[in-house]
Amino acid sequence: MTKERLYLYDTTLRDGQQTQGVDFTAEDKTRIATALDRLGIDYVEGGWPGANPTDSDFFDAAPTLDKAVFTAFGMTKRSGRSAANDDVLAAVMNANTPAVCLVGKTHDFHVTKALGISLDENLDNIRESVAHIIAQGREALFDCEHFFDGYKANPDYTINAAKAAYDAGARWIVLCDTNGGALPDEVRSATKAVIAAGIPGDHLGIHTHNDTEMAVANTLVAVDAGVRQIQGTLNGLGERCGNANLTALIPTLLLKEPYASLYDTGVSAAGLKSLTQLSRMLDDILNRVSHKWAAYVGASAFAHKAGLHASAILKDPTTYEHVDPSLVGNQRIIPMSNQAGQSNLRKRLKDAGIAAPEGAQMLEILDEIKRREDQGYAYDSAQASFEILARRVLGILPRFFEIMRYRVTVERAKAPGMERRTLSEAVVAVNIGGQKHLSASESMDDSGNDQGPVNALWRALERDLGPYQAIIDDMHLVDFKVRITNGGTEAVTRVVIDSEDGEGRRWSTVGVSANIVDASFEALVDAINWKLLRDGAVAV
Amino acid sequence: MTKERLYLYDTTLRDGQQTQGVDFTAEDKTRIATALDRLGIDYVEGGWPGANPTDSDFFDAAPTLDKAVFTAFGMTKRSGRSAANDDVLAAVMNANTPAVCLVGKTHDFHVTKALGISLDENLDNIRESVAHIIAQGREALFDCEHFFDGYKANPDYTINAAKAAYDAGARWIVLCDTNGGALPDEVRSATKAVIAAGIPGDHLGIHTHNDTEMAVANTLVAVDAGVRQIQGTLNGLGERCGNANLTALIPTLLLKEPYASLYDTGVSAAGLKSLTQLSRMLDDILNRVSHKWAAYVGASAFAHKAGLHASAILKDPTTYEHVDPSLVGNQRIIPMSNQAGQSNLRKRLKDAGIAAPEGAQMLEILDEIKRREDQGYAYDSAQASFEILARRVLGILPRFFEIMRYRVTVERAKAPGMERRTLSEAVVAVNIGGQKHLSASESMDDSGNDQGPVNALWRALERDLGPYQAIIDDMHLVDFKVRITNGGTEAVTRVVIDSEDGEGRRWSTVGVSANIVDASFEALVDAINWKLLRDGAVAV
Repeated sequence: MTKERLYLYDTTLRDGQQTQGVDFTAEDKTRIATALDRLGIDYVEGGWPGANPTDSDFFDAAPTLDKAVFTAFGMTKRSGRSAANDDVLAAVMNANTPAVCLVGKTHDFHVTKALGISLDENLDNIRESVAHIIAQGREALFDCEHFFDGYKANPDYTINAAKAAYDAGARWIVLCDTNGGALPDEVRSATKAVIAAGIPGDHLGIHTHNDTEMAVANTLVAVDAGVRQIQGTLNGLGERCGNANLTALIPTLLLKEPYASLYDTGVSAAGLKSLTQLSRMLDDILNRVSHKWAAYVGASAFAHKAGLHASAILKDPTTYEHVDPSLVGNQRIIPMSNQAGQSNLRKRLKDAGIAAPEGAQMLEILDEIKRREDQGYAYDSAQASFEILARRVLGILPRFFEIMRYRVTVERAKAPGMERRTLSEAVVAVNIGGQKHLSASESMDDSGNDQGPVNALWRALERDLGPYQAIIDDMHLVDFKVRITNGGTEAVTRVVIDSEDGEGRRWSTVGVSANIVDASFEALVDAINWKLLRDGAVAV
Repeated sequence: MTKERLYLYDTTLRDGQQTQGVDFTAEDKTRIATALDRLGIDYVEGGWPGANPTDSDFFDAAPTLDKAVFTAFGMTKRSGRSAANDDVLAAVMNANTPAVCLVGKTHDFHVTKALGISLDENLDNIRESVAHIIAQGREALFDCEHFFDGYKANPDYTINAAKAAYDAGARWIVLCDTNGGALPDEVRSATKAVIAAGIPGDHLGIHTHNDTEMAVANTLVAVDAGVRQIQGTLNGLGERCGNANLTALIPTLLLKEPYASLYDTGVSAAGLKSLTQLSRMLDDILNRVSHKWAAYVGASAFAHKAGLHASAILKDPTTYEHVDPSLVGNQRIIPMSNQAGQSNLRKRLKDAGIAAPEGAQMLEILDEIKRREDQGYAYDSAQASFEILARRVLGILPRFFEIMRYRVTVERAKAPGMERRTLSEAVVAVNIGGQKHLSASESMDDSGNDQGPVNALWRALERDLGPYQAIIDDMHLVDFKVRITNGGTEAVTRVVIDSEDGEGRRWSTVGVSANIVDASFEALVDAINWKLLRDGAVAV
């Protein structure tokens, strides 16, 4: 049987940006768009050109996508002017994307209440706006705002609005549950009605929100009823409770029946394997704690805590797993059993150039990682710290230097006749081969602004490392991430530091403590040790 | 029309305890059980007596519930002994609860693979175990483990297992999607088949997991098909991706059609209004950050970030809200963000009790917000800081106190004969009505561990605020978030602090600086100012 094509449309960069607390930079958007393209998403909606400076910057330097159709979002033209003369629409068109998605009213109440125009006038605005996009040679999509609420209130008008866009040439008519309150039976019957009214399913899309935890279910119900485009976001980002979660939908579509046999998407098995990593990458960009309980990609999604489950899993993983975690790039977690972790560990040791040790030592490393991850460490995002830890357990970490003590001071005060200003100072005492090296530094950038205690500590450390000085001279800090986690019963701070050297090598280290300065210092020391290891320093 | 009764069964204290990272104490369990009873839950499952010391302690001093039926969980007796002689089952019975819920195998593969017994032997175990419960005068429930997977593999055996329990006198037969992989169509057809086989819907329950984000949808599909008991957990806690989320299901059942007209539950409108608070209480007990995007009860569930949405909400909240947030005890939020327009601002000012200023001042506030957001501030996640900023621009922020200077020191050192340890100290000088107040503090928790420089600063600040001291005494810090952003050309640190007071009010403030301590301090000072404003402090 030939499979039908199901199209995936990602709106992480537009509706996802409506999430409270989410603020993408133009660089963030480029990174995400490129990753979505690699995953095999068909349409990447970049934002609303002209709506804010970030979106304008992003579209001005739009990323080059390999397969995905880059799409700009906007709204239908306003009344009382032509589509060509609407400056809001013009800003959208000027982004020059191959596809343009416009949202428009399809619920009569919103036409009269929010827009304050006649129902016919709204239909005209839809028609003319879509025709304007087509006339400029672009692909047009039309988001039917409040489609399902509108259908309950005035089914004829809602369907007429959808048809107005379709008849004007829109490639896709997208049925939106804007307020997120529709339940599956409503989605099914309204979708069937619009198909019966003459818009074929392979020209229909579905866009749902999660206000009743139904976004994924409503999406699949719409697919069952005939739509062939799915709009959603990575990790279910989005206004209020979020959009339909593509990170949950994609595995279900590819792995579960009847979807796997009925439909093809642009996502390959290899793309699916990258999904967990992609989900975590988005959280990294947003500096959010990843949702551990997320379907398929959560760190706990395949964690078997119940003792009965864990012992059955050892006999046969299908006893308590609905899919194989490796298919989505995730991992099984079995407390009390290290069997699952060993192959992963072997690979990471090899990557670090460490010969695989014997079984007892493997278990020792696994135990130490588990103990530290319980405290809040995260070795997935800090390979250099993983290597330091493994070498320490195996007794093959050279003792290059020992930190004897440090002190860092941040003072904010006002000298007479001066502005109030902040100054950070650090003093570090290091023992190198029995010799004490004491360095102090303050933290100022070129314009005399204080850069804070961690920077001051780094400057003090890098000032005098005795015989190793030449090796660390080309090393500098390029990124610094801070996250509050719950390690055990207390909130602790996890700091991840990215360092770089003159050869362009980049490495990540992690530190954990209730004290943010301590956590940072631990990551700094790991970073220096890794650099010394890599450049073959000899311990004195 | 008479409504049918739908029963709610909570398993937060049992299946919820299987969540990775969740460990209830017996006291926690008592608090939660009592709250569930007040909410109007019909059955509260307390745990597995005998399975671990906490559960045994909890059942030994079981809470007195007003209406809810207190239920113990266990498993069917093992082969080769009578129900009366099974020590695991005996421990469950000895808890003396009015109801007992036993899980048993109903999927042939698990009977032969995990138990290693014959299919008939398993049916005998089910029958005898249920009969044993009934004989002791208790209400019996039977959880059909892997019911939906079993039904796909061997429908006859699965239904026979369910019927064995029903015929032996079980009040409820609960259909479990143990691995969480079933999709709604499968749940619907299997549920209909079991009803057709002779177990009436008002003796059937549904127990789902969220491994494909379908737990809530699958639950409602089962209700549509005829089941009249719903098992779930608060906040969707539970093994792997969690159980069906009662916090999402209850509002849908009470507020949305067809459920509101068809069914009665034990939860009243007043109970529903307490739901948001109950959800947050559970997170407090577990020391987890609440899931902001949770349906109905999340802090962002009614947050309207898009400018167009916000202006429509001001005209009529139903434009972008599927239910009234106050019905579930939640609140509408119109956050400030770079997408905010004047209507957002007007609403936010009104919420803060500030009369809408004239146009020029409105623009001044908007400009100041834009200017600061360019530097890295984020006012959509820090509404208290927004209010402080608006008042400052409008000249109506009382000058309660002025920070003259502060100094914070972090020192890590080793005293002779001691462990190496870290100590943070802070000194703050504050001018209150011309008087200088100088306070110092170090930062130690109860077990003598250092909590870092920001904590030390907060402790010094809260130690002596002179005439305002009584007002801030019930204030404490509950969360602390750090993000590195690029404001302008330099990397800067954004700190968001959440504070709470004795009345349960919670507010967020933001600070930005290249120096993380400075950024934190700014957010702390905003937090104190907001508390003083709210409690009507008078500037001296």
